[in-house]
Amino acid sequence: MKIGMVGLGRMGANMTRRLIKGGHEVVVFDVNQDTVKGLAGEGADGSSSLKDLATKLDAPRAVWIMVPAGEITSKTVDDLAACLEAGDTVIDGGNSRYTDSLEHAERLSAEGIDFIDAGTSGGVWGLKEGYCLMIGADEAAFDRVEPIFATLAPPDGYARVGAPGSGHFVKMVHNGIEYALMQAYGEGFAILESNDFELDLPAVAEVWRHGSVIRSWLLDLAADALKKDPKLEQLEGYVDDSGEGRWTVQSAIEQSVAAPTIALSLFARFSSRDDNAFSNRLLAALRNEFGGHAIHKGGATEKS
Amino acid sequence: MKIGMVGLGRMGANMTRRLIKGGHEVVVFDVNQDTVKGLAGEGADGSSSLKDLATKLDAPRAVWIMVPAGEITSKTVDDLAACLEAGDTVIDGGNSRYTDSLEHAERLSAEGIDFIDAGTSGGVWGLKEGYCLMIGADEAAFDRVEPIFATLAPPDGYARVGAPGSGHFVKMVHNGIEYALMQAYGEGFAILESNDFELDLPAVAEVWRHGSVIRSWLLDLAADALKKDPKLEQLEGYVDDSGEGRWTVQSAIEQSVAAPTIALSLFARFSSRDDNAFSNRLLAALRNEFGGHAIHKGGATEKS
Repeated sequence: MKIGMVGLGRMGANMTRRLIKGGHEVVVFDVNQDTVKGLAGEGADGSSSLKDLATKLDAPRAVWIMVPAGEITSKTVDDLAACLEAGDTVIDGGNSRYTDSLEHAERLSAEGIDFIDAGTSGGVWGLKEGYCLMIGADEAAFDRVEPIFATLAPPDGYARVGAPGSGHFVKMVHNGIEYALMQAYGEGFAILESNDFELDLPAVAEVWRHGSVIRSWLLDLAADALKKDPKLEQLEGYVDDSGEGRWTVQSAIEQSVAAPTIALSLFARFSSRDDNAFSNRLLAALRNEFGGHAIHKGGATEKS
Repeated sequence: MKIGMVGLGRMGANMTRRLIKGGHEVVVFDVNQDTVKGLAGEGADGSSSLKDLATKLDAPRAVWIMVPAGEITSKTVDDLAACLEAGDTVIDGGNSRYTDSLEHAERLSAEGIDFIDAGTSGGVWGLKEGYCLMIGADEAAFDRVEPIFATLAPPDGYARVGAPGSGHFVKMVHNGIEYALMQAYGEGFAILESNDFELDLPAVAEVWRHGSVIRSWLLDLAADALKKDPKLEQLEGYVDDSGEGRWTVQSAIEQSVAAPTIALSLFARFSSRDDNAFSNRLLAALRNEFGGHAIHKGGATEKS
């Protein structure tokens, strides 16, 4: 089918490539016209504005948005809606917070435009292996765009999980789980690494991939990373986060559900960025106050 | 090759079957002679005692022990060693604590008998899919018994990870990671379950299996369980542990390595068995003391 793609970063560009390869016609737009030209050279139909993109699609139109979550997505949804008409469908495949998606669905609904939130997992591997799609949509809208989902996903890799908003909710929890899974492997390998056995970590990771209870795709990636750099000496233990872990913990709090290891995994990332943490300085100060324990001199700005 | 198998519980019996299927001759022994007769009916060579088992093997002998960890394993190792001679090999495939295995290796070494610890993962699925084997052994002993490992494991599913003791150390950490992975999925699905979206949990688990970052064998099992019982209403949230998580946390403490989510996952299991925890009663009492907050009447023996 014919579809518009707005946002040609790494994800949007790769999804466009996968759609073209799957036989779809893709009209692309990005504020960076160089990327539009690049994709046009790979078989996409370039456009110069959202309005231009809309005119190049046939009603009822379907447009996939793949831009950074938050204000940019909200503005893109609004700007795009102004170029569309009743019966069209907007799909947000980005990492929007599900509460934003609920708002977007409501705003577009007032104009007769269907909003679909498609939580997307797979990262840079998606182009080759397909993207896992968790889709929040009304059934009719879902059915209309299903050929796109079927092409983007691997076999059995997409599902309508509920009404609009639910796709991004499920994707959010997916990422929360991901935080804790990653932390689990991190801690386990740290225990292996610090032991006196002088274990061959790449060999351990590799053997675990075959028949063990803890085999997983993340373990595959860990084995790959350890093979390249067995002690991970080429990088620093600084771990960023992009918001979904925070939202998961906030949802757990709102719903009064205990999610201690997901919360802890989020906090561990914060700690990873603060190797002279104020909390630790306070503990050192207290140990010194009540027991005269030695303190390591330093300062807030000193980082090891 | 020819090998002895001591202990014909679920694991030992299935490993015997996999070895027979792989063309090995297996002499079996168990204190329960009924299970010996059962396996003899499936092609194993039954024996009536450890001494009998030893006489039915050719030097240099190899005997695999698959009995409960702790005292039973230690006693079996000692009793078996009394029936063996220098040059023979004893393999402990059970879930022994690695410190026990270090002791066993030392004791047998004094008699010229090689000790190999083979940490084994795969559970009831091992018969069909193969067992992941993490092996602590001297190289020569490993080489002698390797055909057995090759048959028990799936392709690439066994590795010598270090000296005797290291196999069970790696298996211990494997299980510690397993605790935290399981807890991560548990918490994530709990957030999904308690939300207002009325999500189809079996569908979510199933779609995550295909192309998502959190796909894993444990997720496969979760999807299977949710398919059979979407709200898991047929069981109680009571989670046992068999020791390896405790040992992992103890090793983390000994090595001064932070393993917060593994520790928390262990403690979450303890909490799951105590729905009227003393700690919670103390908190309720304190809230009542300082703020006059309502308390729920009950008692230490009342369980919901």
